[in-house]
Amino acid sequence: MKKLLSLIVSCALTAAATADEGMWLLTNPPLKAMKAAYGFEPSREWLLHMQRSCVRFETGGSGSLVSADGLVMTNHHVGSDMIGKLSTKERDLLKDGFHARTRAEELRCPDLELRVLQEIEDVTARVNAAASESKNPAEAGVARRRAIADIESESERITGLKSQVVTLYQGGAYHLYRYKSYTDVRLVFAPEQSIAFFGGDTDNFEFPRFNLDCCFFRIYENGKPLQAEHYLRWSDAGAKEDEMIFIFGHPGSTRRSLTTDHLRFVRDVELPARLGFIWRNEMKLAEFAGKSKENARLAMEDRFGYANSRKAFTGQLTGLQDIRTFGHKYDEEAAFRAKAEASGNNPDESYRAIAQAQEAHAAFYKRKFAIERVTRISQLAQIALHVQRLVDELPKPSSERLPEYSDAALASTYLSLYSPEPIHESLEIQRLTSALAYVAESLGGDDPVTVTLLAGKSPADRAAEAVRATLLRDEAVRKSMVEGGAAELQKSNDPMLAIARALDSESRELLTRYQNEVEAPERMHYAKIAAAKFAIHGDSEYPDATFTLRMTYGKVTGLEDEGRNIPAFTTLGGTFSRFDERKGEDGFELPASWMTARGTLNADVPFNFICTADIIGGNSGSPVVNTKGEVVGLVFDGNIHSLTGAFIYDAAKNRAVAVDSRGMIEALRKCYDAKALIEELMRRPDLTK
Amino acid sequence: MKKLLSLIVSCALTAAATADEGMWLLTNPPLKAMKAAYGFEPSREWLLHMQRSCVRFETGGSGSLVSADGLVMTNHHVGSDMIGKLSTKERDLLKDGFHARTRAEELRCPDLELRVLQEIEDVTARVNAAASESKNPAEAGVARRRAIADIESESERITGLKSQVVTLYQGGAYHLYRYKSYTDVRLVFAPEQSIAFFGGDTDNFEFPRFNLDCCFFRIYENGKPLQAEHYLRWSDAGAKEDEMIFIFGHPGSTRRSLTTDHLRFVRDVELPARLGFIWRNEMKLAEFAGKSKENARLAMEDRFGYANSRKAFTGQLTGLQDIRTFGHKYDEEAAFRAKAEASGNNPDESYRAIAQAQEAHAAFYKRKFAIERVTRISQLAQIALHVQRLVDELPKPSSERLPEYSDAALASTYLSLYSPEPIHESLEIQRLTSALAYVAESLGGDDPVTVTLLAGKSPADRAAEAVRATLLRDEAVRKSMVEGGAAELQKSNDPMLAIARALDSESRELLTRYQNEVEAPERMHYAKIAAAKFAIHGDSEYPDATFTLRMTYGKVTGLEDEGRNIPAFTTLGGTFSRFDERKGEDGFELPASWMTARGTLNADVPFNFICTADIIGGNSGSPVVNTKGEVVGLVFDGNIHSLTGAFIYDAAKNRAVAVDSRGMIEALRKCYDAKALIEELMRRPDLTK
Repeated sequence: MKKLLSLIVSCALTAAATADEGMWLLTNPPLKAMKAAYGFEPSREWLLHMQRSCVRFETGGSGSLVSADGLVMTNHHVGSDMIGKLSTKERDLLKDGFHARTRAEELRCPDLELRVLQEIEDVTARVNAAASESKNPAEAGVARRRAIADIESESERITGLKSQVVTLYQGGAYHLYRYKSYTDVRLVFAPEQSIAFFGGDTDNFEFPRFNLDCCFFRIYENGKPLQAEHYLRWSDAGAKEDEMIFIFGHPGSTRRSLTTDHLRFVRDVELPARLGFIWRNEMKLAEFAGKSKENARLAMEDRFGYANSRKAFTGQLTGLQDIRTFGHKYDEEAAFRAKAEASGNNPDESYRAIAQAQEAHAAFYKRKFAIERVTRISQLAQIALHVQRLVDELPKPSSERLPEYSDAALASTYLSLYSPEPIHESLEIQRLTSALAYVAESLGGDDPVTVTLLAGKSPADRAAEAVRATLLRDEAVRKSMVEGGAAELQKSNDPMLAIARALDSESRELLTRYQNEVEAPERMHYAKIAAAKFAIHGDSEYPDATFTLRMTYGKVTGLEDEGRNIPAFTTLGGTFSRFDERKGEDGFELPASWMTARGTLNADVPFNFICTADIIGGNSGSPVVNTKGEVVGLVFDGNIHSLTGAFIYDAAKNRAVAVDSRGMIEALRKCYDAKALIEELMRRPDLTK
Repeated sequence: MKKLLSLIVSCALTAAATADEGMWLLTNPPLKAMKAAYGFEPSREWLLHMQRSCVRFETGGSGSLVSADGLVMTNHHVGSDMIGKLSTKERDLLKDGFHARTRAEELRCPDLELRVLQEIEDVTARVNAAASESKNPAEAGVARRRAIADIESESERITGLKSQVVTLYQGGAYHLYRYKSYTDVRLVFAPEQSIAFFGGDTDNFEFPRFNLDCCFFRIYENGKPLQAEHYLRWSDAGAKEDEMIFIFGHPGSTRRSLTTDHLRFVRDVELPARLGFIWRNEMKLAEFAGKSKENARLAMEDRFGYANSRKAFTGQLTGLQDIRTFGHKYDEEAAFRAKAEASGNNPDESYRAIAQAQEAHAAFYKRKFAIERVTRISQLAQIALHVQRLVDELPKPSSERLPEYSDAALASTYLSLYSPEPIHESLEIQRLTSALAYVAESLGGDDPVTVTLLAGKSPADRAAEAVRATLLRDEAVRKSMVEGGAAELQKSNDPMLAIARALDSESRELLTRYQNEVEAPERMHYAKIAAAKFAIHGDSEYPDATFTLRMTYGKVTGLEDEGRNIPAFTTLGGTFSRFDERKGEDGFELPASWMTARGTLNADVPFNFICTADIIGGNSGSPVVNTKGEVVGLVFDGNIHSLTGAFIYDAAKNRAVAVDSRGMIEALRKCYDAKALIEELMRRPDLTK
């Protein structure tokens, strides 16, 4: 536990000092602490089985293998991107749900990649050795990036596994992760969005909840269902109050070990810019959706994504604007620095260098953010930029390319670039209009980037023209352009390529500036701080989240919040009470399948529950397992307090929210008559194996 | 007409050169142009009758006297602020409408002031003379502000009329306006919001439309209905296609005569900041409203206001981001400057000075904007600031006070400060939390203003504490604090006063900085440019809008837009077609009164219409009259193109949108059985008068 509490904050946060904090590397589990708190210590084999049963959704989310035939469980909101892509105007799978009653009915996703982690290797020494001769942080940064690209390519060549070097402790360690990658993934079952996301934006990140936020995919290998060596068994009994549970998943990002100067940058520069962008785009999309029912359908996924990010970032900013959070961080930092000072290993210079890096970053953050948004928002602009950059990058040696185009990353880049996923003209025009106008708002109407982007037209006219005229909507054209190389590309007057080119050179310059002035000094000096921390705390520190596999543990328990006692479990019956209470309001509809089953569903079966395990965005879709490694739940959310968890964990308040395995089965049986799926989930493995 | 077209933009804008552009002073109507275009020339008496029949809503909007008994017609969305204040949890007048069938049932508004313009006097010479000895623009600004305060106080003392000096042509002229002021105003009739604002945010600023956006108040004087000498007669026939019409009202603000440097500031600094604030607050209020039905009711007015401003500012920014608008402005400016140069009266120095003023403004615009938002958003913070400032300002001579506290302005300030209007705790906490967090986001968490404002708490805790603990919710306390003076006030530890004080000194500093570095040079140099324009164009220039009475004229006519022909009129029957088309969607509900009357309403009666008259926000509630001065309509909106009208008028596209007088009567009869109201509207005046 790394919490060093001062008197000021001890009332609010005392509980944290003895709590279930930590997103642990599976290679370094806190065995003693677990044993002391719960009397249980996982074995190496148990952890390896968990590791190889877990799945990472490359679209951003977690999941797990739950049958011997490659069945994968995740959240509806993790799968919804694909469910949307598989929908058409006539077949709205988000609204109506989907249920393949036979393998033949399973729907293949256009561009979904799932990964299962096989091996982990510490490559810190090799990465740092590459930078040992460098004259300054920027040069060291270049050397490290090249070493990482080389390590990844080499590993991929030798093992055939997807290889990725993960930067841990902000630069304190580098681990090489090797994954099996699967790209033939098919949709098996999804409930209707109304019950998956019951309570809508209003109840999101709250508890009590009543959400069937699950869906099931199946991995295929060589055209046949994957025969999984490792997968999770289903628990008959579910979890009890106070029972120890584990969550294995891929928390996306935390900033718990940042210096207070760095956090100040996050609070005053980064989060306001991100939220400003989200608020804006939510309103732009609301205007678009208001124009017709079809627009509303098309905009649904984008709107959900923005709403979810808005709540998460709002929670983070609210946390940082609260002096109690910051006060705690100041105290923690001061206590560590005093200890480091006393041990003769004073990292003051590193703190100063990190503060300087924040000032440097603040000088161009908004500009970089705005320019990068265009290709984040617009699918076609993104495609055009990939085409342009592939043509520019491929002739270079792998280690000198932008990371997305290194040999190790190319297959994933191609998967998304050559995807046959539908592109909806009206939504795409909306997105590009909005993005171009955002650049004009952020940089000014006379900025050279704005002027080149707009080419003498209004954002709306420029966007409509580019979306309608581009040939890049056709995957084959993309491929032939990439293969044609620079000479061919120069001949093209495709307006979407012109938009990509208008952004490319400044975008690259700003990336280099970020790498040299911000990332490189941060890596160097966080590594020094991490070394000082290791010297004091040993390896009882966990690294900040990096969207790689972590273990977190805790117990099923309610909480007291603003004077209310919130129990750990809700029930299926509670769903209908909430429905009656908010009847007719946005986000509180129930699908016909549930209204019909209202009389037959067992109202007392647990539906959702909360537990103290320490999670964050990216953990969505993670399995909750008991000490036997059986599935007792499916994480789909954190409560409102967990959002501050990006910076600080408070066991009294932070809760992970999960669908109960029993509620899932009861709903699958009574609302969806999903016999085969239930049978597959409940099937016992061959214990002789 | 001031348009000087270049070839580049002549296609798009040729029509404007021969069009009905202009928001004219009633003291300087374009008689020749009107006569030439429509063969009609209003007499002085006709104009004076119009002037004295028109009403200004001090809350921001227009209206007109429409009966001998002081009946005032305006838009529902102009009156909705008051309709909301007259509502309670049990009596939701916004949702359900209101109809006083007898005078006794009319509801007195808590703090509504209406004004009727009586006299106009040109005081340009006196204002400028006061500044003639000044050594620099800032000093001249101070001298002019003092002269204006003196002129207003003197006029008020002598005439007993509310007196206000209006700055025209950005400083080219100063006119003294004298008003009768009425503060006993009662609500007579309001339809349900769903039909007043049918189509919601989606159809706002669009056409075709189907809105009964009207409501009626009555002015009382000495406890009895005002016996109005001037009021408008109702037209039996309504308006025909191509008929000449006039609109008299109070356009709020246009920026048509700004230099291109100044417009660039508006495009790149002002509008992005304003819109960013609006997007943010719309999302904050949506979160609040989602929590309960009562929250949704409380937030309705704020949400409508933000949504309306969002659409208006978005239209403006979209216009300025379109190179055609800006290209036109460049050409217009270049042509004028060439002519001025040729005539030996080159205003280059003034253009440069105005450009410098924009740079100066950009340096502190966002800071000033953020700090001022707190008292704009939070009713109680606004009240606290008034109390604090009154105590500080009242001991000074009137001409040295902040403008709101000059003798001439005090009565209006007191009306709002001592209003018994309800303050809703939950909404007020939401507003103040949002405002405090906005300051933290904009200035940074460690800025001294943020730190003082938050006093060591989170925005939410600080807001809840201040709203719950302040004594300023009681009007009597406000009064006694103001009367107690500085010594008494210093003793108070009211947290809302602490919030006001935390803002006050920097807010004053930034105001002074604005006056000295921006406003004063702008006034001085726009006056010089205006003089150069007068020298070339004579008095055929109209000044930019200033929320004072203007006349605009044109004809009833449709338009061609993106290949569609949009007819001038919609019908009552069209309302139900639109309802059927969008059934069940947000903003497309119809009230029971209309559903019931569906069979009896004459479907062919005109409901809404468009005309070319040149209007902008503030004109809402203006009467549309024919050449006989009879009411044929009620302006409630502009079409989407009219939003660019803040900078440029295009007769081919800009349209004012009005409720047809015939549709209003048919709906009052069939949906509301409002016999007495109809009889009062249709009553003929005694022609012997």
